[in-house]
Amino acid sequence: MPQINSDRLLADLRRLAEFGAYKSGVHRPTFSPQDIEARRWLAGRFTEAGLEASIDGIGNVFGRSRQAGPKLLIGSHTESQNHAGWLDGALGVIYGLEVARAFREDPQTAGAAIDVASWADEEGHFGSFLGSRSFIGDVTDEEIDKARDHNDGTPLRQALATAGLAERRRETIVASDTIGYLEAHIEQGDTLDEAGMRLGVVTGIVGIRQYRIVFVGEANHAGTTRMVQRKDAGVALVKLAAAIAVRFPEIAGPRSVWTTGAIHIEPGQPSIVPGRAEMMFQVRDIEDTQLQRFEDALLALITHANAAGPCAVTMETVWTVSPVLMSQAFQDALDRAAQKHAPGEFIAMPSGAGHDAQILARKLPAGMLFVPSIKGVSHHWTEDTREADIVLGCQVLADAAEEIALAARKLG
Amino acid sequence: MPQINSDRLLADLRRLAEFGAYKSGVHRPTFSPQDIEARRWLAGRFTEAGLEASIDGIGNVFGRSRQAGPKLLIGSHTESQNHAGWLDGALGVIYGLEVARAFREDPQTAGAAIDVASWADEEGHFGSFLGSRSFIGDVTDEEIDKARDHNDGTPLRQALATAGLAERRRETIVASDTIGYLEAHIEQGDTLDEAGMRLGVVTGIVGIRQYRIVFVGEANHAGTTRMVQRKDAGVALVKLAAAIAVRFPEIAGPRSVWTTGAIHIEPGQPSIVPGRAEMMFQVRDIEDTQLQRFEDALLALITHANAAGPCAVTMETVWTVSPVLMSQAFQDALDRAAQKHAPGEFIAMPSGAGHDAQILARKLPAGMLFVPSIKGVSHHWTEDTREADIVLGCQVLADAAEEIALAARKLG
Repeated sequence: MPQINSDRLLADLRRLAEFGAYKSGVHRPTFSPQDIEARRWLAGRFTEAGLEASIDGIGNVFGRSRQAGPKLLIGSHTESQNHAGWLDGALGVIYGLEVARAFREDPQTAGAAIDVASWADEEGHFGSFLGSRSFIGDVTDEEIDKARDHNDGTPLRQALATAGLAERRRETIVASDTIGYLEAHIEQGDTLDEAGMRLGVVTGIVGIRQYRIVFVGEANHAGTTRMVQRKDAGVALVKLAAAIAVRFPEIAGPRSVWTTGAIHIEPGQPSIVPGRAEMMFQVRDIEDTQLQRFEDALLALITHANAAGPCAVTMETVWTVSPVLMSQAFQDALDRAAQKHAPGEFIAMPSGAGHDAQILARKLPAGMLFVPSIKGVSHHWTEDTREADIVLGCQVLADAAEEIALAARKLG
Repeated sequence: MPQINSDRLLADLRRLAEFGAYKSGVHRPTFSPQDIEARRWLAGRFTEAGLEASIDGIGNVFGRSRQAGPKLLIGSHTESQNHAGWLDGALGVIYGLEVARAFREDPQTAGAAIDVASWADEEGHFGSFLGSRSFIGDVTDEEIDKARDHNDGTPLRQALATAGLAERRRETIVASDTIGYLEAHIEQGDTLDEAGMRLGVVTGIVGIRQYRIVFVGEANHAGTTRMVQRKDAGVALVKLAAAIAVRFPEIAGPRSVWTTGAIHIEPGQPSIVPGRAEMMFQVRDIEDTQLQRFEDALLALITHANAAGPCAVTMETVWTVSPVLMSQAFQDALDRAAQKHAPGEFIAMPSGAGHDAQILARKLPAGMLFVPSIKGVSHHWTEDTREADIVLGCQVLADAAEEIALAARKLG
């Protein structure tokens, strides 16, 4: 059994957190100087672990096994949200590094191949899952040409050039040579912490349907326009949003969520009746049928609103993510490892947040393991996980990786 | 009977509309070069009409009668909203000029004193009713020091200096020497146009209570935060706004209006549960008791929302305008003049929009006359009024002014 070295694991996590340190967290946006420095440091650690280190043309950092045979890929991301936590992403990458080292140190697994990856820009400073999507061949050069830093407008091409990556090839997956993908991550929520659980074996990553709903009425003077004459787009929006708040709980699944994250009304002046209003509304669920049930209900509410008048309501789907199921075999391996090290302290759960695993799962069997975030905090510098849980998660991942890698060798 | 000269009236209105002409309207913001030019032109027209012309230290343009005895003041404003109509304000000022000329030309009224005023910044580019409030002594030097152009941030002091007004005194009212104030204005609404009426005798100007309602919840990840745990400030806002839409019609007066003109939710990202939300909500009515009834109902809804949770809701009154009644004697004089020239084609009505008359009414008996806006359009360059109605309104104002001025002389 590969035995992880908890001191080495924690030391590497703490060292990585020094790049862009911010209060008790980190500020390490994609391709910031701190992020580039962290990627170079990581490549160095890969080399020291006997892996073949490289940084590709989109900024993905790889540590490839020198062993022959099918590889098990383990990864996550090392850039952070702005002023965010030290473990979000970093945890899963350093777990990969530590599992690779533990494999090499155990005679039973020394011949098995663990590849480690840090995917660029999971946090979406320039795009959406650029690194992992590039790896599965889903990012065109045109998309890179157009992408810009959402914070300051820097073109991605320029950021890549600054990082010295402009001339590099983008690596892509050789699925036939890869057993599957494992990713560990902090839970971005409080399900584990609230339930007093130490591990979550991810069943799948929820799908998302993001809608823009637009209400068109007529802007008018708020003093002289009588109520009966108004076509108040703001009131139309409020009524629909309130109807959603009544209707959706009646048809929701056990872990469905829905959110009106943004509302804009125009012209947005105290003394002008709003002539146009817009809301960004999204639903998330692990079941596609549930997402469809929500969409049908939303369309029915909009049809009703249009029939009632006086404003015109239209809906457009801005983007969608399909629910992704994790490999049952990988879930089973994670379950067994968790049962061994933390019996009664783990649960199966879907991920409400997106992860690189949902991208890799398009090409490979994939599995995910969560460790608890204290009080469920994430995307904030106060994010943290108990040290014992950090260590436990890595050992469970190592055990599951062993089972998966050795099973593949037997099959191979 | 003073007989207005319709050609002269219309020619002056059309000449004034050349300053800052924009499509079929005007763009003449307060103290723009076009506005300053228009003020100087107006002062010249006052002089030509035998009035003593001046522009004071806040930009008010006066044309003072050289007659002894109590004066009847007639006015409105000559600056415009951005890219707005040619008659909004301009109509009432040129009516005043024309009434003064007609009085002088009629032996019966030649001895009566008509003062004419164009109040600066009724449209609120720098503040709120700066010109008329300055005239009644309600604007401090400190307020002027602080005021800036809402469009481009130019300090009011600098704008006054550019207009050559920095060193001038601000004129203030001598109420004991003034009979009262008359203002004619386009109706900023479609009550007259819809009803096929040609004149509105204003009964009063509605009061306004402007509230800011703030909802504080907890911002959270929209994927990982379960519905039962959320403190969604946006949903709290939507529920209160929807409750207002149900409750307020039940308790409204015949011409009450209420408006949620602005909504802001924070952080306003599609995938983040809103942690804070804010709405600007206002009520208007001619009756203070009705405004209070609305406020009581609003407070009850907020108390209910706070009791229901999970967000904290607070309300603050941002500003208020008390309802202002027009002088009954002036309404009667306007009624009689309207009955003479347009029997069956005028109505009594409150003003839902604010006007300088509500400021002057704090110190003087005041009366207002509305002419119809075609299709109720105002604050837009397509705003217009039929020529026959423009002429009718001026003659009715002249007749009412005669009755008021001669009655005051008899009393004096």
